[in-house]
Amino acid sequence: MAPNAEQVKYATRAEMERAVEMIRHTIGEDTVSIEDEIIRAHGYSEWSTINIDRLPVAVVFPSSTEQVSQIAKICHEYRVPMIPYSGASSVEGHFSAPFGGVSVDFCNMNKVLEVYAEDMNIVVQPSVSWMDLNDQIKHTNLFFPIDPGPSAQIGGMIGTNCSGTNAVRYGTMKDWVVNLTVVLSDGTVLKTRRRPRKSSAGYNLNALFVDSEGTLGLVTEATLKLATIPEENGVAVVTFPTIKKAASMATDVIRKSVTVGAVEILDDVLMSVINKMGATSRKWAGVPTLFFKFSGTKASVADSIQQVKQIAERHGADDFQYESDPIKQKALWSARKEALWSMLALRESDGHVWSTDVAVPLSRVAELIDQSKEDLQGLGLFVSVLGHIGDGNFHETIIFEDMDRQKVEDCVHKMVHRALDMNGTCTGEHGIGIGKKDYLLKEVGSVPIEVMRAIKGSLDPKWLMNPGKIFDFA
Amino acid sequence: MAPNAEQVKYATRAEMERAVEMIRHTIGEDTVSIEDEIIRAHGYSEWSTINIDRLPVAVVFPSSTEQVSQIAKICHEYRVPMIPYSGASSVEGHFSAPFGGVSVDFCNMNKVLEVYAEDMNIVVQPSVSWMDLNDQIKHTNLFFPIDPGPSAQIGGMIGTNCSGTNAVRYGTMKDWVVNLTVVLSDGTVLKTRRRPRKSSAGYNLNALFVDSEGTLGLVTEATLKLATIPEENGVAVVTFPTIKKAASMATDVIRKSVTVGAVEILDDVLMSVINKMGATSRKWAGVPTLFFKFSGTKASVADSIQQVKQIAERHGADDFQYESDPIKQKALWSARKEALWSMLALRESDGHVWSTDVAVPLSRVAELIDQSKEDLQGLGLFVSVLGHIGDGNFHETIIFEDMDRQKVEDCVHKMVHRALDMNGTCTGEHGIGIGKKDYLLKEVGSVPIEVMRAIKGSLDPKWLMNPGKIFDFA
Repeated sequence: MAPNAEQVKYATRAEMERAVEMIRHTIGEDTVSIEDEIIRAHGYSEWSTINIDRLPVAVVFPSSTEQVSQIAKICHEYRVPMIPYSGASSVEGHFSAPFGGVSVDFCNMNKVLEVYAEDMNIVVQPSVSWMDLNDQIKHTNLFFPIDPGPSAQIGGMIGTNCSGTNAVRYGTMKDWVVNLTVVLSDGTVLKTRRRPRKSSAGYNLNALFVDSEGTLGLVTEATLKLATIPEENGVAVVTFPTIKKAASMATDVIRKSVTVGAVEILDDVLMSVINKMGATSRKWAGVPTLFFKFSGTKASVADSIQQVKQIAERHGADDFQYESDPIKQKALWSARKEALWSMLALRESDGHVWSTDVAVPLSRVAELIDQSKEDLQGLGLFVSVLGHIGDGNFHETIIFEDMDRQKVEDCVHKMVHRALDMNGTCTGEHGIGIGKKDYLLKEVGSVPIEVMRAIKGSLDPKWLMNPGKIFDFA
Repeated sequence: MAPNAEQVKYATRAEMERAVEMIRHTIGEDTVSIEDEIIRAHGYSEWSTINIDRLPVAVVFPSSTEQVSQIAKICHEYRVPMIPYSGASSVEGHFSAPFGGVSVDFCNMNKVLEVYAEDMNIVVQPSVSWMDLNDQIKHTNLFFPIDPGPSAQIGGMIGTNCSGTNAVRYGTMKDWVVNLTVVLSDGTVLKTRRRPRKSSAGYNLNALFVDSEGTLGLVTEATLKLATIPEENGVAVVTFPTIKKAASMATDVIRKSVTVGAVEILDDVLMSVINKMGATSRKWAGVPTLFFKFSGTKASVADSIQQVKQIAERHGADDFQYESDPIKQKALWSARKEALWSMLALRESDGHVWSTDVAVPLSRVAELIDQSKEDLQGLGLFVSVLGHIGDGNFHETIIFEDMDRQKVEDCVHKMVHRALDMNGTCTGEHGIGIGKKDYLLKEVGSVPIEVMRAIKGSLDPKWLMNPGKIFDFA
């Protein structure tokens, strides 16, 4: 059974420091840092919706699965929490250290280990960035299709089951994992599978570790599937008089199963910000806009564009622009790409950013976005809406100053509860971390949380792996 | 921790009978059967590679999640194993009763409960057959794409993460589950999620229950995704001088990411059997043959066929036949559909059938099929090879008499070990059950099995849910 708060006894600060000494002694002087600045950078994030006061006592930098196992054995003996760190672009406090412990930074484990082009597989370490990975394998005509923010790394992407604009076509992280090597809390090394293309052999441990946010073990290696780089690409931009019309059109495209590479919604606020900041080389209409990506063979891309155009017309689109030239495509897609950065660039020096996401069934997404936009009217907050709308998933990004924090929290609270009322989830791709624990409990109720706790308790009885994330003690 | 063999104490036969009386008393006279014939039909299968002597003490027929929960509470109190039963088309002894207990037959829970066409979701009970389901929702222009054997039902399909010919296009069962209602061993009712189209909210309990073969709980309701019925379909049949050439061509189609609805390989034995039995209205060349399905828009189907044809030519295909007329398509696909039945029809009255599957990385599948065929030469066994080759997954079907059982076991053993040596799995879609426990241990080693046991122990500490499947006691 899962231990309760009284049964979990973590090391004291002095004991944690002794454990860190032991790690330094075991795996080497230069693999441990206790510098203030480094510790702070590993326990705090300005991108996070929530930060806590406590910090890790040290940061360790292992170079191999074996070293991670040695670290875990020592932490297990001394009862020291272990918090995995890679990329650090998560926004819900995933890598904060509410119980102290050591931050395990995988930056020295950032290599592509093996490429099996014929099998469409790649073996990587956790701190490979998905963009670097794609640069390194370009010559194979294959790519890894999950595309979150540019700084994301594979380890964190596994932890949160991340996705991005390509998810509507290619699915999310869970769909691309062939096997994982994981160090468990006592240092045991687990390899989930070999490399079959399909399997029904026992529990799906891959899927259990994906989205467990480091609470079950430290992922030290992953074999991933790869996709074939499409022969042809296309981008279309479609504008609408209202956000609801834009959202309805997008969901209709999904329901008709038109093959699209991505379908993204940007609200009037974002489109105006992009103009204001001169973020792209062209001027946009400051109205609700859908961005479509297409990919495939020449014939299939042409076919999909034709279908999308027809659906757009039926839904009263104001304008439909399509681009097949790769350079001009980039210019067209650039607005989608620059949206978040343009928004952030408008932040005052003492301003904060709150980025949050929810996902709902397809039929409710237009209404949810519309109502959420309405809620924001008159609050005096600077908020934009951007969504992976083909997945029923969208984001609110709020720029605010300290004095407005309560207003922002209320606003997020309302959006999440509305999504839950529509049978949705409190997060489509960001994960729970510390920031959404209460929402998860509200979403699924106490039984699933008890089951998650029981599973954690069975693999991590001392409750050392990234404690305080997803759920609290019993 | 998972209990060991000495710690698990099941009820005696007399105690099990008392528990059955209690179930009868609680949920009704006609919900329990102890008839010999019915019990035997629930504990034995002529399709199974393995059968054991022991049978369940009773079969119970619940009509609701609540009744299943009541049954579990009683079984939990009396320490009676519970074995889920739906469809009963599995081949590895999944529903046998090595420790006695009750078989929970879901035949009274066979309804489509809700259809959310706008969300592309459906809510079903476990004994709905996938074919009935598709009949019932035809008017929505949606369908459920996982297509195992015709008698399979959703509950069992969840238990084994089943797939079929469509898997190369649509994935396997795990990819189509939105949420599950599961009765745990003590009768607790768990609902994993609401109905978001995408989620990163906490552990992926859907994926944990899919492929757990009823060892973690009894699935009583499932929300599934649906796909849009394609506008156009096509079938092509391509013949080759050798099975290796056929397999190589098929894997090349996958690597180039040509959109195919299915790609199936049938060996010369099967094609000759189909001819011999007159199973279809036409005469086939008795040579290695690939069957392709295509689906999509008119333009995209035409495009895919063109690509497949070019690849076939490059790989030295003897013949390429394509059919766009739906009735003639059916005739063409019929050979694939009738393959197994034709083979079985040739079985003598005292003959047995052994159907087994493995899956390997894409680059190894041609070699594996070729070598496996070679191994069979001169053994005097009647064996055919059929494969979902786009997934690196293939089946051997062996018809044999009692005296040849050892020969057959050796043959399967060799094929599985060769697949493991090629970094594959002992089962791509059939599951482990009782028949492949040793192979699973060989495949993944002891650490993953320990982790699976620990997870089971945390959710089912009395080890009551379908015990003896996937792995043994510690």
